[in-house]
Amino acid sequence: MNAINSAAGAAEWRIRMADGSSESLAPESSLVTRMYLSFKRFLKSLILVVLRFLEKSWNVGKNEPRKVIHCLKVGIALSIVSLFYYLRPLYNGVGGTAMWAVMTVVVVFEYTVGATLYKCLNRATGTFCAGFLAIGIHWIANQSGKRFEPIIMGVSIFILASAATFTRFIPAVKARFDYGTMIFILTFTLVSISGYRVANLLSMAHERVSTIIIGASLCVITSILIFPIWAGEELHKLVISNLEKLAESLDCCVAEYFSDSEDTTTNTKKMLAFKCVLNSKASEEAMANFARWEPAHGLFNFQHPWGKYLKISASMRSCACCIEALTSCINQKDQASELLKNQLTNSCQQVSSSTADILKELALNMKTMRKSSRMDMLIQEKNSAIQELETLMEQLSGLLIQPKGAKNEKDDQEKPVIRTSTNVIPLVEIIPTATFASLVIEIATRIEGIADAVEELSKMAKFNLEDAEMIKQNKPVIKN
Amino acid sequence: MNAINSAAGAAEWRIRMADGSSESLAPESSLVTRMYLSFKRFLKSLILVVLRFLEKSWNVGKNEPRKVIHCLKVGIALSIVSLFYYLRPLYNGVGGTAMWAVMTVVVVFEYTVGATLYKCLNRATGTFCAGFLAIGIHWIANQSGKRFEPIIMGVSIFILASAATFTRFIPAVKARFDYGTMIFILTFTLVSISGYRVANLLSMAHERVSTIIIGASLCVITSILIFPIWAGEELHKLVISNLEKLAESLDCCVAEYFSDSEDTTTNTKKMLAFKCVLNSKASEEAMANFARWEPAHGLFNFQHPWGKYLKISASMRSCACCIEALTSCINQKDQASELLKNQLTNSCQQVSSSTADILKELALNMKTMRKSSRMDMLIQEKNSAIQELETLMEQLSGLLIQPKGAKNEKDDQEKPVIRTSTNVIPLVEIIPTATFASLVIEIATRIEGIADAVEELSKMAKFNLEDAEMIKQNKPVIKN
Repeated sequence: MNAINSAAGAAEWRIRMADGSSESLAPESSLVTRMYLSFKRFLKSLILVVLRFLEKSWNVGKNEPRKVIHCLKVGIALSIVSLFYYLRPLYNGVGGTAMWAVMTVVVVFEYTVGATLYKCLNRATGTFCAGFLAIGIHWIANQSGKRFEPIIMGVSIFILASAATFTRFIPAVKARFDYGTMIFILTFTLVSISGYRVANLLSMAHERVSTIIIGASLCVITSILIFPIWAGEELHKLVISNLEKLAESLDCCVAEYFSDSEDTTTNTKKMLAFKCVLNSKASEEAMANFARWEPAHGLFNFQHPWGKYLKISASMRSCACCIEALTSCINQKDQASELLKNQLTNSCQQVSSSTADILKELALNMKTMRKSSRMDMLIQEKNSAIQELETLMEQLSGLLIQPKGAKNEKDDQEKPVIRTSTNVIPLVEIIPTATFASLVIEIATRIEGIADAVEELSKMAKFNLEDAEMIKQNKPVIKN
Repeated sequence: MNAINSAAGAAEWRIRMADGSSESLAPESSLVTRMYLSFKRFLKSLILVVLRFLEKSWNVGKNEPRKVIHCLKVGIALSIVSLFYYLRPLYNGVGGTAMWAVMTVVVVFEYTVGATLYKCLNRATGTFCAGFLAIGIHWIANQSGKRFEPIIMGVSIFILASAATFTRFIPAVKARFDYGTMIFILTFTLVSISGYRVANLLSMAHERVSTIIIGASLCVITSILIFPIWAGEELHKLVISNLEKLAESLDCCVAEYFSDSEDTTTNTKKMLAFKCVLNSKASEEAMANFARWEPAHGLFNFQHPWGKYLKISASMRSCACCIEALTSCINQKDQASELLKNQLTNSCQQVSSSTADILKELALNMKTMRKSSRMDMLIQEKNSAIQELETLMEQLSGLLIQPKGAKNEKDDQEKPVIRTSTNVIPLVEIIPTATFASLVIEIATRIEGIADAVEELSKMAKFNLEDAEMIKQNKPVIKN
């Protein structure tokens, strides 16, 4: 039987596995049947792949409708630029080089206004500089006779292309002029070698530059006028949402640690929100780079201090790292003494909620672009919560050393004191909770890095103080 | 005097500040002198900027000579492609469209072989598909008469460009075909609108495809034959060096915590090596994407499981987060009890050194692409070190609860017991060190995630077992 099966081929084997007893029918299945079956299977998997792709696309479109708008914008810009071809007067105006306008639109049109501007300005500048230089070198080569001309041109291409490629490795150039450098190499080479053939070099260069400018302006106009997506605004929103996520994660982690329920699934998503903070470095850097090119828009001036957002994010990541360490404590929460956890619940939650309050306040400040008069108070509140937790932890010694019921009476009036019937907990059961509390305190301390970074931003971006009314009253916020 | 100063302008004001007493000379300084001075300052700062730029470039070149080689490769490829213009027979062969070959070289030549191949294959496929489709649609439009032709072409451009732009937002497409999609849009639009004007559409398409193939092959050949830089190899090396950095950081942090010296500057660089691990996510993902396109090279087959490297890195980042939390303990090491630190030094260092050994062994395994027979043993060793540290921490209770010198005698034979003259340490001084030790244990536990990921990689990439000799002997490694 084994011989028959292996002769029938591996693909056939699996089908027979499904109906078990029908193995004796196998020799009858003809080549056509088998081909039909495998074609059917292929078709099925193809349809499945296409359906899955469509589902993914649908989700992308549903979650971020602005991406769909961007696609329509690209379509509009390309349709407009192709008018240069279809309408004869325009076609005669720019000559056969309308191609460059099309190419510019396809290559330069990006999702955000900043990225589009970055590419447009880089492309225009790169083309202009390279064209200028190429014509100059071509003139020199022309003077030195027919024989040396190709040599001079070849050597200049080699040297300039190598040098320009090298500058792309220098971080400062890479961040701002990477695309421009590539366009420089491209234009220089094209103009150089065309110059060797085409007689009217200057008019060619002029045509190219003008079509590129047409394409670039079309992109910029479409990008800014129709539902503009500003890199700066996106960065601003991302940082704010990250601040909120950090607050949410911290709150959830602490609540989860001190909760009795075994069911962690409901909060897991909120608890792990901090991962977004850890993973958004690359996109934040890209957005900050593009935002530099954007003109004033909404609440932001030209040259808004976008670099500061990266500093805020770096501080957030350092907090997020601590929260990541915190999550591992949650997995070990069963090893901790229940009694101790009960004792620390309030203080720990006080610290975490006052820390989360600071984060939320910072997010609010950034959202409204106003300085908060409450910030100092919130930080003070957080510090006193830390102080209280630390005091409580000092008193934990009471759980271990002191003779039963001796010290409690003395301290009863001043401090929140641990009341417990049996006063001895093994140290091993204390350590997990102590570690957890230390980490919470560490996070609460690191939060000041974020507050400082936001403060710097608010100074540089000249955030206004909150409404005068609020300042006059200067109400302390009553916490529950 | 104030009036005079402010009249002289803000720039002048600062210069006079420098020589203090010569204020009375101010009215004599003429416009020419002032212009000369500001020009001199401008020149000075310009020279400074240029010098700094050159210094940076020099450093980039010195640290990574391969980047210089890459630049020369670009120069060589461009010089060769410009031969198509300079040499008449070749020029006649490809017609005036040699431009496309130049453009392909400039746009497609990337630092790594993988990136170059990715762009080449994407460009070729995108051009081919779009050209084919555009000619088909053009034929249909042609059949429907002069009046409808521009409308059909315009609508098809709008729909296809929008749809293709949209697919670029789908992660799976973005990772592999982003560039191809852009080229698809570009070629489709160009061929469509040219088709409206140029009579011999097919020969134009043919010329374009052939010049692109010439340019692309030139890039691939130069990229592979002259000092190739493989994205896969780079990723492999990066992950190995990150493993080593993690080991180094961990060792340094623990050593630093238990050292008495106040001078932390010498080790700070080594201690913070883990930051590289946290920051290399974006470049690792890019490299893994490009590595997929590379043929077999060195120790790697085609379709080497590059995705697994990303999994290893993710596990490494989760460890690095814990190390980041560890560093904050180091800043607070003065608050911890010296006595306790002395007690825990050996055990903690045992855990960290056995963890670092695992990391180093994993790095070695990856470097040699062999499975280690020692790994299980090392993990066992690490687990027993953790066990020992935990036992020691359990015994710390002895420092607090038990009556002086009572329990020590009993346990003396079996366990490493804390010997101390005075048996009471405040709990507050214990907590920092306990937190530190808990974090070290957490890191040691998380390391298994890395080991598992490397194990998966070694299975999929079919790492060989170490030399048969080693396996036969199966020697336990004697640790100092």
